[in-house]
Amino acid sequence: MAERLRVAMVGNGFMGAAHSQGWRVAPRFFDLALQPTMDVLVGRDPARAAQAAEKWGWRESSSDWREVVERDDIDVVDIVTPGDSHAEIAIAALEAGKHVLCEKPLANSTHEAEAMTRAAEVAAGRGIRSMLGFTYRRVPATAFARRLIADGRIGEIRHVRASYLQDWLVDPAAPMTWRLEKERAGSGALGDIGAHAVDLAEYMTGLRLSEVSGVLETFVRRRPRPAGPTAGAIAGAASGGADAEYGDVTVDDVALFRGRFASGALGTFEASRMATGRKNSLRVEVSGSHGAIAFDLEDLNALELYDARDASEEQGFKRIIVTEPEHPWVAAWWPAGHMLGYEHGFANQAKDFVDAIAAGTAPRPSFTDGLHVQRVLDAVEHSSGTDGAWVGVAGATA
Amino acid sequence: MAERLRVAMVGNGFMGAAHSQGWRVAPRFFDLALQPTMDVLVGRDPARAAQAAEKWGWRESSSDWREVVERDDIDVVDIVTPGDSHAEIAIAALEAGKHVLCEKPLANSTHEAEAMTRAAEVAAGRGIRSMLGFTYRRVPATAFARRLIADGRIGEIRHVRASYLQDWLVDPAAPMTWRLEKERAGSGALGDIGAHAVDLAEYMTGLRLSEVSGVLETFVRRRPRPAGPTAGAIAGAASGGADAEYGDVTVDDVALFRGRFASGALGTFEASRMATGRKNSLRVEVSGSHGAIAFDLEDLNALELYDARDASEEQGFKRIIVTEPEHPWVAAWWPAGHMLGYEHGFANQAKDFVDAIAAGTAPRPSFTDGLHVQRVLDAVEHSSGTDGAWVGVAGATA
Amino acid sequence: MAERLRVAMVGNGFMGAAHSQGWRVAPRFFDLALQPTMDVLVGRDPARAAQAAEKWGWRESSSDWREVVERDDIDVVDIVTPGDSHAEIAIAALEAGKHVLCEKPLANSTHEAEAMTRAAEVAAGRGIRSMLGFTYRRVPATAFARRLIADGRIGEIRHVRASYLQDWLVDPAAPMTWRLEKERAGSGALGDIGAHAVDLAEYMTGLRLSEVSGVLETFVRRRPRPAGPTAGAIAGAASGGADAEYGDVTVDDVALFRGRFASGALGTFEASRMATGRKNSLRVEVSGSHGAIAFDLEDLNALELYDARDASEEQGFKRIIVTEPEHPWVAAWWPAGHMLGYEHGFANQAKDFVDAIAAGTAPRPSFTDGLHVQRVLDAVEHSSGTDGAWVGVAGATA
Amino acid sequence: MAERLRVAMVGNGFMGAAHSQGWRVAPRFFDLALQPTMDVLVGRDPARAAQAAEKWGWRESSSDWREVVERDDIDVVDIVTPGDSHAEIAIAALEAGKHVLCEKPLANSTHEAEAMTRAAEVAAGRGIRSMLGFTYRRVPATAFARRLIADGRIGEIRHVRASYLQDWLVDPAAPMTWRLEKERAGSGALGDIGAHAVDLAEYMTGLRLSEVSGVLETFVRRRPRPAGPTAGAIAGAASGGADAEYGDVTVDDVALFRGRFASGALGTFEASRMATGRKNSLRVEVSGSHGAIAFDLEDLNALELYDARDASEEQGFKRIIVTEPEHPWVAAWWPAGHMLGYEHGFANQAKDFVDAIAAGTAPRPSFTDGLHVQRVLDAVEHSSGTDGAWVGVAGATA
Repeated sequence: MAERLRVAMVGNGFMGAAHSQGWRVAPRFFDLALQPTMDVLVGRDPARAAQAAEKWGWRESSSDWREVVERDDIDVVDIVTPGDSHAEIAIAALEAGKHVLCEKPLANSTHEAEAMTRAAEVAAGRGIRSMLGFTYRRVPATAFARRLIADGRIGEIRHVRASYLQDWLVDPAAPMTWRLEKERAGSGALGDIGAHAVDLAEYMTGLRLSEVSGVLETFVRRRPRPAGPTAGAIAGAASGGADAEYGDVTVDDVALFRGRFASGALGTFEASRMATGRKNSLRVEVSGSHGAIAFDLEDLNALELYDARDASEEQGFKRIIVTEPEHPWVAAWWPAGHMLGYEHGFANQAKDFVDAIAAGTAPRPSFTDGLHVQRVLDAVEHSSGTDGAWVGVAGATA
Repeated sequence: MAERLRVAMVGNGFMGAAHSQGWRVAPRFFDLALQPTMDVLVGRDPARAAQAAEKWGWRESSSDWREVVERDDIDVVDIVTPGDSHAEIAIAALEAGKHVLCEKPLANSTHEAEAMTRAAEVAAGRGIRSMLGFTYRRVPATAFARRLIADGRIGEIRHVRASYLQDWLVDPAAPMTWRLEKERAGSGALGDIGAHAVDLAEYMTGLRLSEVSGVLETFVRRRPRPAGPTAGAIAGAASGGADAEYGDVTVDDVALFRGRFASGALGTFEASRMATGRKNSLRVEVSGSHGAIAFDLEDLNALELYDARDASEEQGFKRIIVTEPEHPWVAAWWPAGHMLGYEHGFANQAKDFVDAIAAGTAPRPSFTDGLHVQRVLDAVEHSSGTDGAWVGVAGATA
Repeated sequence: MAERLRVAMVGNGFMGAAHSQGWRVAPRFFDLALQPTMDVLVGRDPARAAQAAEKWGWRESSSDWREVVERDDIDVVDIVTPGDSHAEIAIAALEAGKHVLCEKPLANSTHEAEAMTRAAEVAAGRGIRSMLGFTYRRVPATAFARRLIADGRIGEIRHVRASYLQDWLVDPAAPMTWRLEKERAGSGALGDIGAHAVDLAEYMTGLRLSEVSGVLETFVRRRPRPAGPTAGAIAGAASGGADAEYGDVTVDDVALFRGRFASGALGTFEASRMATGRKNSLRVEVSGSHGAIAFDLEDLNALELYDARDASEEQGFKRIIVTEPEHPWVAAWWPAGHMLGYEHGFANQAKDFVDAIAAGTAPRPSFTDGLHVQRVLDAVEHSSGTDGAWVGVAGATA
Repeated sequence: MAERLRVAMVGNGFMGAAHSQGWRVAPRFFDLALQPTMDVLVGRDPARAAQAAEKWGWRESSSDWREVVERDDIDVVDIVTPGDSHAEIAIAALEAGKHVLCEKPLANSTHEAEAMTRAAEVAAGRGIRSMLGFTYRRVPATAFARRLIADGRIGEIRHVRASYLQDWLVDPAAPMTWRLEKERAGSGALGDIGAHAVDLAEYMTGLRLSEVSGVLETFVRRRPRPAGPTAGAIAGAASGGADAEYGDVTVDDVALFRGRFASGALGTFEASRMATGRKNSLRVEVSGSHGAIAFDLEDLNALELYDARDASEEQGFKRIIVTEPEHPWVAAWWPAGHMLGYEHGFANQAKDFVDAIAAGTAPRPSFTDGLHVQRVLDAVEHSSGTDGAWVGVAGATA
């Protein structure tokens, strides 16, 4: 029987439920060299943490992440708190010799992200693994798209259009949440979903953005405060006066930017929480010199492939249902034609992270990958503040 | 300059507008060996015929089809009246040495259809051409589908699903029309749109139905009479008492049948005027031993093609936009990606009929093809009346 | 903390994995009045059963279902074996006072299904619950469709088109399996997937089929035997000589039938394992007097709704993404726009079964519901053997 | 009978065929107060002009546009030449008292466009009408979208995404044409198709862009010269040495820009001739405060409408087939469900132009509208040359 890999998870919001499902399910479908076990759930509020632990099936709970990351009987620390606490927790865990899986964004600031990346590099020297939770890399269709592109199926890439559209802020009466406070969330649509669009576009294509030009916009600048504690927050207290009826939205509703990849290819990016009717539409379309690929998260079991080398009269976008055993991760799941959902990415991610730990290899996306995305977002923000000028992405070869 | 081909059209309802557009437009896009001219429009009511002639651009009008089909200065008779008058007009025209294009259905009864077919065969011996207006054979996507299937792109055909769904009778308050009277229309959904489904399925596959089993149903059996003359009728008078407020629907709203092709393949067919939300949805899907093809008239510029010989991980339905110059008829129209519509089938049909006349070849669909469809419909009706038993299609090799 | 509900599952094929996931996951997302625990997995082969139990997380394994269903420490027996053993196991379990969840089909013969139904009725008198695994009733979109139809959103139902299309038998070289042997599987496409089409159409509409007319067809009548044990079988031995290279396919590849509901509505049904390119396409479209609904399992997070009472110029099929908290079961899962997959139906099913046991109510689909579907299938088979004649469904009011 | 409106068309390329079809067909479907007649076709090469006139049905041909625009027996001049000759011809025609329909772009330079606008304003004072051929305003779905938005169906507009994607330049071996020469074409994707995206987005929303930020890119900078005369050119001679095997592409392949509307709404725009697999995909999606609208020219008979005021569980994008008699222009065409194509926009455009002339009203889009679009394109080009900075659109209220 496989040796155990003892996991502690810090955070008990929505992403905690998703990561829990990943840890719970992965060993039931994949053959893993190490057996992950759900040992400790950490949340700031002891009662809520205990309740979440029981609900989600963690053996125990704690309200002291510092104590937990030092424990000898923990091998992995999985961080699913808001971005403002990622750096502190991750660095402590890495220094304590724990493998770290950190939910995106890597951090709320580049400064923090750089510190985390250095810590990860140091830890790697001691065999400690770290990985970032850009989970949409673990949708079979996106990984398959990457494989096709890497195999040259669409030729040289000329341009990319990526957008992540949601609509939960369309209604001006939608309430304040920590996700709308710059202090807690770092940024708005840009960092929350724009980051996914950037990472996924780069992952699928294998290209890196070297400069960007963008604009951020906040359409609704004040929103009513909810009566109870801010939804999804690890902490109960929202910033600002507790008796204030309205809060200031200090992050962007919409981020529009374009980018130039180091290869010379161009990309357009749009992240919006006010795209009416679009619930969770992360789309990436890649135009190559002899083919194209299109993906949409609202149709996540499919990938569209266009081959410009087909006979002229037979060219068209082919809708591949990515549920064949040959497709990434699928053989472990269900027979062809049986659909996977949102959470399967978390199980696939847990599998890959466990595999990397067992094999002693460096998992991706790395903290370095996350730092790069952070720098792209920084550059967008900087561009937005300087009249939309092109701004180089730090560390990227132009 | 090309010699003239002088056309007389009998009928001035909706199909008259469509055929007029075909004659008007075909010579402006195709290079034709003969130049069709719109010489005479015939309608029972002289004033309405004159008005339609002016509107549609026919040189003159007449209310006497017998006189017109005998005229020396007419080469082609195009029949777009309701089905109850097709036989009489077509036979007279053929006997007068005119080429005949007859709108479907060939006739309202097999007896008439057989007489027409005999007349067409006799006429053919004298170089006189006749063709039936199953215009959906002239949609580029369906003709392209036929070519692909004939070329073996999807292998041996196992089964076919064909449906023609409309919804103009969903509302019980939708008024009576000659199309709902058995005497005038022959049958309801079965003959009007089921005939298209049968012909198109056979055309695309190259197969022939040899036996069928079916049921006809009329959901709404009485409908209000409209105040004015029955819409679309060449004649002003509706059958039944003029003062009756309601009329009896004597044809089917829905026809469901399955068929066995001579090859052993199976087909399912559905024709409905009460398929809520489906405006004009003629769909044919063909499943072969190594591929499949799907067409939908509501998306008429596209054809879906599935190739089961693609690599397993790259299989999928490919949506081919059938607007490339290599596709049937398309080179004469617009550049790739510029969509065609309903009426282009009539121009393509006019082109093919003129070509056949000029070349002295036998155009398709022939009256014999129409007779076969008529026999299929007869067999469905017979089956419906005998408890759904399988009924052989007369003249078809089982 | 909730009282335990101790589950034993009989069977360790593909459906065992799905049911295991249901039991595993349901308590982590839903608040259940009883806490199901995965106690015993039963499989004919002890080694395979033990392996599956460890893989899927069952506490122990056994190769003796008779012993297990008698155990005092078991509350629920979940049957996921092939249909030929359902009756014996279910009846024994019910008589032993265990709640029974039985995967569809209820049985391979109506005779067995009737016996099971009687046993379930007797057991119900003692507070013992039984439920059948037509899991597609637990897709949020189908349950939502049922609610809409029951609320009169599409009016009186006129007709229904239902099809379940797969293509895993398109290749004549696809190997023999117990699913192609009448003795083991009962029937082919008809019982395996046609049963789902019938149940789902009836579930969504609330209607019952009273008579049917159909045909069964086997296109490929001999298939190569695989080298190893038959995939998915609880027993290792395939019927027929072990050294035979080919086996006879004794079930249908395709079933085509139409049906009349007791209300007078009509339905068309198609079940095929040779519909090239269709992986798992279970579609139901319902046409009502003022609306329509369409569902496709290959797009399972969506439901299409047409409202014929919208302003004429604004009518159209609306694609509702069924991931809002108001939709059935969804509130327990993820935020809006986060997609569910195939297996979520099994968790929703486990939740509903546990709820019914806790509440002392009769869960649906009942064995009686399953018996009805069995009788529909019987009638189709009978009709196919008698020239496609209409055959009444036993027990259904015509 | 209606008084004649005598038309002369200058130009005999692809757009000449489209405009001819518009003039030919419009009076056959619409009831027009004036009867347009196709009197003179003008082309630089007399033989080609004569051939086109005969083919397309113009009464006579000429190679001298100056002479034709002065003729007393001409009422309308329709200009379908490349953009570099628009100004000269249009101004001469307006000064000669002819109504002018000018194909887009209005001109290749803002300077010319301004002169044309002034000439149009002067002419309007004398009752002379001028209109610009942004024909996609005459697709029923786009006009219906405008009506819905103007009626407040989607609320206040927050953002717009518009793209016009084609792929005819994907292949580096695709030959040179006048459309790739800045001198002839003015610009590349920006002016040719980006102009449509700008105009259509503004038309549908009723908003005006006030500033833009953009980038232009040419991926393939040299292309082989075709053997014969440059396709589509009114003149036979391509610029550059006739013996050169390659020509320099001096226009953009791709234009990416974002814009701010005067209202504060944001827009993203992409125009590309290298979007592999996209043949003629002009898409506009508009996100409003309580609804959204989406249009795609590759599906031109449909419009998608999302109403965020529907019950939460019933929200979704509704696919309206825009073929009902209540939809703009449709009543004149075919029954519901019968699809229109690319060219119908030209007939609808001819109808509207004739109506405006007959009614003595100012048709839209006006030359002023075209000048505005030209200024938007200028601003994009200027922004591209100044590091992507935001550039105000001349004449637009910021």
